[in-house]
Amino acid sequence: MANKTLNARDVDFILYEMLDAESLTTRPRYAEHNRETFDASMATARQVAEKYFANHNRKGDENEPAFDGQKVTLIPEIKQACDAVIETGLTRAGRDYEQGGMQLPHVVGQACFAWIQAANVSSTVYAFLAQSAATVIEKFGNADQQKRFFEPMLNGRFFGTMCLTEPHAGSSLGDIRATADLQADGTYRVRANKIFISGGEHDLSENIVHLVLAKIRGPEGVEPGVKGISLFIVPKFLVNDDLTLGARNDVQLAGLFHKMGYRSSISTAMNFGEKEGAVGYLLGEPGKGLSYMFHMMNEARIAVGTGAAVLAVAGYLESVEYARNRPQGRAPDNRDPRSPMIPIAQHADVKRMLLAQKSIAEAAFALCLYSARLVDDMQTHPDEAARKDAADLLDLLTPIIKAWPSEYGPKANDLAIQIHGGSGYMREYIVEQHYRDNRLNPIHEGTNGIQSLDLLGRKLGLNGGRTFQKFLGMMQETANAALAHDETRELADALTHAVQRLGKVALFFATKRDVPPSLLMANSALFLDFMSRIVVAWIWTWQANIAARALESGSADADFYRGKLQAARYWLRWELPQTVQQAELLMSLDDTCLAMEDAWY
Amino acid sequence: MANKTLNARDVDFILYEMLDAESLTTRPRYAEHNRETFDASMATARQVAEKYFANHNRKGDENEPAFDGQKVTLIPEIKQACDAVIETGLTRAGRDYEQGGMQLPHVVGQACFAWIQAANVSSTVYAFLAQSAATVIEKFGNADQQKRFFEPMLNGRFFGTMCLTEPHAGSSLGDIRATADLQADGTYRVRANKIFISGGEHDLSENIVHLVLAKIRGPEGVEPGVKGISLFIVPKFLVNDDLTLGARNDVQLAGLFHKMGYRSSISTAMNFGEKEGAVGYLLGEPGKGLSYMFHMMNEARIAVGTGAAVLAVAGYLESVEYARNRPQGRAPDNRDPRSPMIPIAQHADVKRMLLAQKSIAEAAFALCLYSARLVDDMQTHPDEAARKDAADLLDLLTPIIKAWPSEYGPKANDLAIQIHGGSGYMREYIVEQHYRDNRLNPIHEGTNGIQSLDLLGRKLGLNGGRTFQKFLGMMQETANAALAHDETRELADALTHAVQRLGKVALFFATKRDVPPSLLMANSALFLDFMSRIVVAWIWTWQANIAARALESGSADADFYRGKLQAARYWLRWELPQTVQQAELLMSLDDTCLAMEDAWY
Repeated sequence: MANKTLNARDVDFILYEMLDAESLTTRPRYAEHNRETFDASMATARQVAEKYFANHNRKGDENEPAFDGQKVTLIPEIKQACDAVIETGLTRAGRDYEQGGMQLPHVVGQACFAWIQAANVSSTVYAFLAQSAATVIEKFGNADQQKRFFEPMLNGRFFGTMCLTEPHAGSSLGDIRATADLQADGTYRVRANKIFISGGEHDLSENIVHLVLAKIRGPEGVEPGVKGISLFIVPKFLVNDDLTLGARNDVQLAGLFHKMGYRSSISTAMNFGEKEGAVGYLLGEPGKGLSYMFHMMNEARIAVGTGAAVLAVAGYLESVEYARNRPQGRAPDNRDPRSPMIPIAQHADVKRMLLAQKSIAEAAFALCLYSARLVDDMQTHPDEAARKDAADLLDLLTPIIKAWPSEYGPKANDLAIQIHGGSGYMREYIVEQHYRDNRLNPIHEGTNGIQSLDLLGRKLGLNGGRTFQKFLGMMQETANAALAHDETRELADALTHAVQRLGKVALFFATKRDVPPSLLMANSALFLDFMSRIVVAWIWTWQANIAARALESGSADADFYRGKLQAARYWLRWELPQTVQQAELLMSLDDTCLAMEDAWY
Repeated sequence: MANKTLNARDVDFILYEMLDAESLTTRPRYAEHNRETFDASMATARQVAEKYFANHNRKGDENEPAFDGQKVTLIPEIKQACDAVIETGLTRAGRDYEQGGMQLPHVVGQACFAWIQAANVSSTVYAFLAQSAATVIEKFGNADQQKRFFEPMLNGRFFGTMCLTEPHAGSSLGDIRATADLQADGTYRVRANKIFISGGEHDLSENIVHLVLAKIRGPEGVEPGVKGISLFIVPKFLVNDDLTLGARNDVQLAGLFHKMGYRSSISTAMNFGEKEGAVGYLLGEPGKGLSYMFHMMNEARIAVGTGAAVLAVAGYLESVEYARNRPQGRAPDNRDPRSPMIPIAQHADVKRMLLAQKSIAEAAFALCLYSARLVDDMQTHPDEAARKDAADLLDLLTPIIKAWPSEYGPKANDLAIQIHGGSGYMREYIVEQHYRDNRLNPIHEGTNGIQSLDLLGRKLGLNGGRTFQKFLGMMQETANAALAHDETRELADALTHAVQRLGKVALFFATKRDVPPSLLMANSALFLDFMSRIVVAWIWTWQANIAARALESGSADADFYRGKLQAARYWLRWELPQTVQQAELLMSLDDTCLAMEDAWY
């Protein structure tokens, strides 16, 4: 039996009932689209996901990329999967028609991608990462770079990577040691040791275009800190003027990393310029490398959040299926051993584990698609102020969109294993792999600790706090709307109090001046969890409002909506109340962690 | 560099300062022991752990047992490890001198075992599980069974297993289908398909003695439910009267399970009696199989809790080491990129992740050793009433001792990975394996859901609730003692309120009569977490009291004690306050989960 991926009904609910994706078709860019074209795109994505990605999810886990010192070997299904997403245009879902794209709204493109991620998250890395790298060149490259690198990447001839991390510098990118020396011909010689490079070596494409962060060496050496960092295009093969491949560049695979999960995705250590220096082309202006890279970061972080979310969804669906079909034990008030066993889905504690997963998985997925919807507003909303508001709100929420699904998605996967009992611990069951795959997400694209510093240290204060205030107002509106239905009145009350609590804590941090910044920032991870729980309560109240309206209007799909209401109740009754204690702890400026001394461990 | 296992200073602290293990030497059974003999035993265990277990922890993970259809292959280090623990007597640590044992108190034996578990938890399964099986035969077997099976198991010639689970019956053992038919010679023919059998096949010992749960078939078939279950000795090879091996029994390896972790421990599917029926010998009386098995269960559950705890300890120590030696970034108030990077151990959020691990790992380990200390009192306390009290308290706490370390140990391991960043996700770092190994513990020896039903449904009401009341009193005494020191007064207050809260919730459940049992029991997992957080707060207050006294008396080891105080503060400030919301939720008899319907998922 095929593994579960997404619930199509819920995808529709989020896209059309919650995020009103159809309304985007009134915008000129999407004028040729309608719900049918959106649905057709998702159907294509789902078919490709099932045929080319789900087919080797286990096999890829069991047969990670191998390197014999000369050559990397991947299982052949990965190449077929890459070809399929390129041929169907799924890698270009959001791009212009003139680029061979489908000009789909970002939110629909993200939903398409989600089907593929849910089927096999690690095999998505190759072709889709290449498109992110391509976009950086598209945005900041000169005409020659467009032609020589962007276009072959766009059509899938070349793939690409992002080379940021070095052995001694991960979160602290200002400390990278990679250097670039200007040559007489205007090119650079790049020397760098980079690690954790996804897609660093393979034969899936004719060429691999590495985007490498490095510091330009001047007469006085390199500039310290982030300001000195520039971004370079460093291809595996140089590209001739006629776009054929030229000489092999001085780029070498140093070795592979062996991961807990995400195993079909190759993770490499790359050495640039160990011999004569790798030929590199400066992208855009010197010293702007990080800002170019971070230009892509919001979207990369949404993709991480979505990957974490859909693994949670997939595990949830697997465990529902298992729980419905696994008879074990009897109801607490039935002592007759002759009576048949009942499916474990009927045991209260299994219901708890299913409902907890549902409350995490569906909210995380909705939150990520909401953020993709913000990208659409940021890019194509007819009103300029609305475009800016969307961009700001996305900026504010990005740390939560990346961190919350990646923190709670693995918790959901943990529950999916527990429901499977001993079987869940066996690699014969896919929930075991979900758990390992999802563990990457709290780490990459900025650890969740970094996200929490970003949220508390920068994002709350965006536009003098006005973006945050506006967001509080949006959440309060949703709470107010919940007053309109009997089924949601309890949620209105809980969310209202929570929003007030969040406002109070934020104000406390914004106005507290008599303590050192290190103490204010010390419990940033707690603040991230605190605010996330409230944001998720908002997402659930939003969904519950829609469900209550649908039930009141006599929807034939009552079971689906009742499930939404119950999951909303679960989150607001079981997970939201902890924000009361969290607010107290935050406002006590507790120094327990900060005061810990090294000798005390 | 060798991987971290335990902190010897903390083992000493728990054993001698907290649990006063030396006082046990006044009991006749331990009269020949003193602190030096205890320490010598632990030193031996540690040496064996380092030489024979740590040496293949990674290798065993990378080379799980293989079955080619004919023969099982294990890496050779496992045999050497088994031989070492048998030769050094560590498998017989608690047994009588006349049995070749060391007659060590259980608490010291458990500490010895903990060193080995921390070095390589999965390779411990073979020789130590054999001893648990041996003890069942020792307690309930007849003279012939003692001679034929127990004695060769005691000295390590034979190993053994416990065969409970069947494909359709795990938690619900009353539904097993295994049968036994009495033969004219008094033996039985056993027919059974058993799964998840640890140590089911290997060539580490001459023979494998399976203890198999099955139902005796009478003229009217088998008795339904748990009452019909008997326990049988079913050896791989029959044993002749002269104790040489006889005919091969009808016991076949059906296949291996492929686990997420715990990989050097073989997990098998075993078929008994597929041909002529496997020869089995009834152990003790018919119908008492489960009670015999559960006789060992408290100790098995302590071992699971300890395994989970020491994996948390090992991961904690690894991440302390990593954090101290990994420079990255600068303090929040330092903007000078020319200044050197600081070790991540100095970042507040890393301190949080280290302190959270410490608060879990050291409390879990102390809780498990405390429970082993209760076994000593239960078995050897000079006062009969005290023996009964210890047995009852152990009964009460067993669900928490098994479930809390196994629930929070993996959370600690998760934090150890996060501290390692990208490296933590790589199999090159041991914290990755800890995370996978530890994920088994919430599942086996009774899932944590089963533990929660046991706690709320049976253990709270033990002796009409008097055992629970007495335990509340013990915790209150610890809180009172914390009033004596400036450093711990805050803890006294927090623990006192928490104990009152626990008493109030328990009284609510004990006296609530007007609701169906299914609703009372529905949130048992929440109650387990609620009570566990308070029990752990008690453990920490206990340790903090000792630390405060030591500091007041001017101990030269001040750093160690300051660390204890800080970890205690962490738990009581960060993890205990959530019990306020949990108590409210519990007493609301929330039916969110129970009311969830199958069609709503």
